[in-house]
Amino acid sequence: MSLRGFASDNNSGVHPDILKALAEANVGHATGYGDDIWTHRAVEKFKEEFGQEIDVYFVFNGTGANVLSLKTLSRSFNSIICADTAHIHVDECGAPERFTGCKLIPIHTPDGKLTPELIKPHLHGFDFEHHSQPGVISITQVTEIGTLYTVDEIKAICDLAHQHGLLVHMDGARIANAAVSLNLPFRAFTVDAGVDVISFGGTKNGMMFGEAVIFFNPELSTYTKYYRKQETQLYSKMRFIGAQFVAYFENRLWEKNASHSNNMAKLLYQNIKEIPGIQVTQSVDANGVFAIIPPRLITLLQKEYFFYMWDENRSEVRWMTSFDTQKEDIERFTALIKDNI
Amino acid sequence: MSLRGFASDNNSGVHPDILKALAEANVGHATGYGDDIWTHRAVEKFKEEFGQEIDVYFVFNGTGANVLSLKTLSRSFNSIICADTAHIHVDECGAPERFTGCKLIPIHTPDGKLTPELIKPHLHGFDFEHHSQPGVISITQVTEIGTLYTVDEIKAICDLAHQHGLLVHMDGARIANAAVSLNLPFRAFTVDAGVDVISFGGTKNGMMFGEAVIFFNPELSTYTKYYRKQETQLYSKMRFIGAQFVAYFENRLWEKNASHSNNMAKLLYQNIKEIPGIQVTQSVDANGVFAIIPPRLITLLQKEYFFYMWDENRSEVRWMTSFDTQKEDIERFTALIKDNI
Amino acid sequence: MSLRGFASDNNSGVHPDILKALAEANVGHATGYGDDIWTHRAVEKFKEEFGQEIDVYFVFNGTGANVLSLKTLSRSFNSIICADTAHIHVDECGAPERFTGCKLIPIHTPDGKLTPELIKPHLHGFDFEHHSQPGVISITQVTEIGTLYTVDEIKAICDLAHQHGLLVHMDGARIANAAVSLNLPFRAFTVDAGVDVISFGGTKNGMMFGEAVIFFNPELSTYTKYYRKQETQLYSKMRFIGAQFVAYFENRLWEKNASHSNNMAKLLYQNIKEIPGIQVTQSVDANGVFAIIPPRLITLLQKEYFFYMWDENRSEVRWMTSFDTQKEDIERFTALIKDNI
Amino acid sequence: MSLRGFASDNNSGVHPDILKALAEANVGHATGYGDDIWTHRAVEKFKEEFGQEIDVYFVFNGTGANVLSLKTLSRSFNSIICADTAHIHVDECGAPERFTGCKLIPIHTPDGKLTPELIKPHLHGFDFEHHSQPGVISITQVTEIGTLYTVDEIKAICDLAHQHGLLVHMDGARIANAAVSLNLPFRAFTVDAGVDVISFGGTKNGMMFGEAVIFFNPELSTYTKYYRKQETQLYSKMRFIGAQFVAYFENRLWEKNASHSNNMAKLLYQNIKEIPGIQVTQSVDANGVFAIIPPRLITLLQKEYFFYMWDENRSEVRWMTSFDTQKEDIERFTALIKDNI
Repeated sequence: MSLRGFASDNNSGVHPDILKALAEANVGHATGYGDDIWTHRAVEKFKEEFGQEIDVYFVFNGTGANVLSLKTLSRSFNSIICADTAHIHVDECGAPERFTGCKLIPIHTPDGKLTPELIKPHLHGFDFEHHSQPGVISITQVTEIGTLYTVDEIKAICDLAHQHGLLVHMDGARIANAAVSLNLPFRAFTVDAGVDVISFGGTKNGMMFGEAVIFFNPELSTYTKYYRKQETQLYSKMRFIGAQFVAYFENRLWEKNASHSNNMAKLLYQNIKEIPGIQVTQSVDANGVFAIIPPRLITLLQKEYFFYMWDENRSEVRWMTSFDTQKEDIERFTALIKDNI
Repeated sequence: MSLRGFASDNNSGVHPDILKALAEANVGHATGYGDDIWTHRAVEKFKEEFGQEIDVYFVFNGTGANVLSLKTLSRSFNSIICADTAHIHVDECGAPERFTGCKLIPIHTPDGKLTPELIKPHLHGFDFEHHSQPGVISITQVTEIGTLYTVDEIKAICDLAHQHGLLVHMDGARIANAAVSLNLPFRAFTVDAGVDVISFGGTKNGMMFGEAVIFFNPELSTYTKYYRKQETQLYSKMRFIGAQFVAYFENRLWEKNASHSNNMAKLLYQNIKEIPGIQVTQSVDANGVFAIIPPRLITLLQKEYFFYMWDENRSEVRWMTSFDTQKEDIERFTALIKDNI
Repeated sequence: MSLRGFASDNNSGVHPDILKALAEANVGHATGYGDDIWTHRAVEKFKEEFGQEIDVYFVFNGTGANVLSLKTLSRSFNSIICADTAHIHVDECGAPERFTGCKLIPIHTPDGKLTPELIKPHLHGFDFEHHSQPGVISITQVTEIGTLYTVDEIKAICDLAHQHGLLVHMDGARIANAAVSLNLPFRAFTVDAGVDVISFGGTKNGMMFGEAVIFFNPELSTYTKYYRKQETQLYSKMRFIGAQFVAYFENRLWEKNASHSNNMAKLLYQNIKEIPGIQVTQSVDANGVFAIIPPRLITLLQKEYFFYMWDENRSEVRWMTSFDTQKEDIERFTALIKDNI
Repeated sequence: MSLRGFASDNNSGVHPDILKALAEANVGHATGYGDDIWTHRAVEKFKEEFGQEIDVYFVFNGTGANVLSLKTLSRSFNSIICADTAHIHVDECGAPERFTGCKLIPIHTPDGKLTPELIKPHLHGFDFEHHSQPGVISITQVTEIGTLYTVDEIKAICDLAHQHGLLVHMDGARIANAAVSLNLPFRAFTVDAGVDVISFGGTKNGMMFGEAVIFFNPELSTYTKYYRKQETQLYSKMRFIGAQFVAYFENRLWEKNASHSNNMAKLLYQNIKEIPGIQVTQSVDANGVFAIIPPRLITLLQKEYFFYMWDENRSEVRWMTSFDTQKEDIERFTALIKDNI
């Protein structure tokens, strides 16, 4: 399967600039576990984006980043509120529960986005020892179904959280796609909106591996380094994550990649939105298109392209684009749809 | 710090053949999480070494591999017996206890090696619900202090374990160095000696990242894939571990690297063993040299080379060589010692 | 607060026959942890009720019983399906997640009762390592909102569970009230209906403390004794749980108590059901009455009687009766309602 | 087995005053989970002993008390230092590791007592993320082998701990025996000596069940109530623990019982210490006698009396006395020894 499909942005490969950075970092010896120049530079890059007060922890992958974030923000008797489509609830095999001991409270949403109104009914039982204590709200930006929170929507959630003593985590596996789509700097919809910690993804946008957990209040992360090690997410040859992130920020590679990826999704959306028999189900805010299409067509398309069924009950599929999706990929895929609808 | 020091084999970089393999695997899309041709090929390579009956799980790093091995072999009420120098006891910040719930039983040894005699006093309390039930024996090959188990020594431990219903894990972070030093195929001192699961390391011997957990009895690993995900060790772009291991086995790169590394340690040992005031404390069986040297000399050497104090109380240091250590590195380091002793 | 209120059946005291049994067991020494004649007799009593094949574990309290049941039936990557009103989800501060590592899947129900239709949408993702694997269905009999499963309803759930490889736990904190209300022996709606393990409650029906976890297939409980100890639920002076259960079954004290308790709830229901302004919200199947009443009346009643608000948003209260509720308590409480509605 | 043996003080029954208190508390209804007059009175009793600043949590049993103490004092990346004879290490089936996630560091001692000298070598690796961070020192008073810490010995350990940022837990399963033997008020060798939290035992000294966890600095216990619930140690009919502790302190029942128990051990010791062939191995500081005796004699004595082998390898047994041991029991047992030595 080396054809470019629409299964997931993690089916894509690695951007050449990233590969080059890996090769360039491969000189001599470097102290392990993060005390090296590449890692230090990467931290500086993050400070340029998010401010000097941040505390950054590099990890291998997204689930690792999410679990480390949640563990740091919670105690085992807390509950963690999230959308019922959240990756932490649906796609991590219970890793958050296993490592934090917390209860997840999944909330049904129409569009993958929590709102104060949806959250409020779960903010009760404070100080009552029988009840898991609401401790963290976790939102995903871009959401798992391709939609975006506005800055004001995020602020409203953070305000509500902080009023009740909760902290806010953002799963930013596709945060670059969000920044591009919002046309805002990262900080505008994270630290400046009140978010306490983010999982900053790189792997889905052209990196080989590596994510960052960023705390906006260093008092929160006093013990994070121990949790990272205990979670088995401390990398010995850390320079090879550091070097990737340096390249990712230099020349705004993240932006170039995410912008392209988003545009490819928009193109796909434009191409198919008026085809009778195809119903796009979610706003195409970033690099994912969700659509209800005839089951017969799914079978046919999957003979040539790999992509996932999203909701079998209503014949809904998910198509993801990525930094390396080509315009011809979209056109050819669209033609296949049109020829067979 | 790009000078090659003697701190750890994980301070070294990546072998060029590995970098090349990464670049070559970077074509088109590949299904995530292991269902790709590189990963499949890597599994085949492992089967060539260990036999067709094995079950292989790739993970990011050594602690991840150890914890996944131990979790699979144990239940939370078990105890895990290991040397008190074991990485799982000393260097993993309690990750094994945290993820398995088990008690670790560290045993003091003269040379980092468990023996049946050392283990036996801890094999009691079976069926007694107050007592953590002995469940796993974990040995390290090469040990954390540079020594080696013989095949017979491993067999004796495995026999004892199995007689009492325990299972045996081998931490093989430096398993290639062991194979070279023993001049035996991997299987001779693992599956053929009775070991149940190994953490097969790559990162310390020229890979960028990636380890493998190999079960020799697939009945043991029915649920391992879920534990890997829950432990946050499932890699999305798995082909980039697979491709590294393929290159690692092709042309016996593992052997070339480990052999060189071992030879560099031997050379260092030869150079210093008769220097008055230097006392080598452990048998130099692989790529580590442990020595008691004057504190004054430590300070002086560390101005130029990075390496770790092993036991401050007796002024004992650890010097590790790696695949990229050069003969000149050893000679220059030796000269520095001789000039200043 | 020594007045008898309607807050909970655990606000009641201890039946005199139980106190007497405790005193009678207080002779000489007895081996600790369960190897004593009282505990052995209690196990025999359970075998008379549930058959010879059972495996019984005594614990201190209901949460302890539930967590031990769930831990035994699950692995950490499983999910546990329950009603969103379940005690294990709402009232145990996340103890099930904390000790099992599992994800709880709470399902909204109209009446506290799961059905195959409600469960089926959650039975997916089998064998998919990203997804918590459905492992256990937990039902409560009598439910937390006073309703009852029929035998057929339980059978349907157990059949569905077993078809998909799941196991079924019944939280029987009020199982005696259920048996009385169904007018059936315990086994008819547990082991004979396909349930795999029950938490058999005693504390809410006249005992001082003590619950039993009963496995109907001893193959399931091979390791339960270790989990009980590790959960801190192994009692040293076990005879004092055993003696209580012996008294509980002798002369069918459980039936006498539960029958009385249920009757008191029915009497309350009869007295209030036609009062204008009072709306009973759930079927009064056992010893609980749930009703929407004017907020003003709640305030007034709570000046004299202790009981809990169930749903503040709709002014719904919960009134529980217990083995020691007196007819006059009901009449006096009813009069207070009628005088102030 | 209703004969009074020497197996354990938890094989004894319940003191009549305790039974009487249980019956007297059995009137009317009481709010569950601790908000009742008996529990409040019991807390007052503890404040009389330990000062007004304490924070008290009642639990069912000793393992529950220890685990709650340790969980409150630690984070999952900490290590807990204890004697290798400690109940938390030897007799709790790994419950501390399972619930806290911490590593236990068992230290070999000649007499069950830690000392600063024994502890110091383990106080290293601070701030080093690979190393479990030393967090708690746990001592047992009376130790598991019947010996006692002096006030100065405790102070020295607490000083060392606090100098390094560690906290000190005392397992006081037999704390009443310690107070009697030291002839000191409880506070003299706990809070006044610098201990941070104690497990205060009742069950082994004439209570039916119930222990207390007492924090001397309420800042430590902010979240303890949630951990108690999550650990499954929150008792619904709490008044029945409260009432027992009230009776335990009234008329200094604890002292009467412990004093008697200690005296019985002393009598046994006096009777046997000069018998040739019997070697008492530990100082008889409280209610336990440890002795090496001929294996033949063990077999013979165990035909009539239940007691435990302590160390099979050297034919060492443990004889425990309790509040209900009678002088005649000692004399008869002694005679049996003398007749058969």
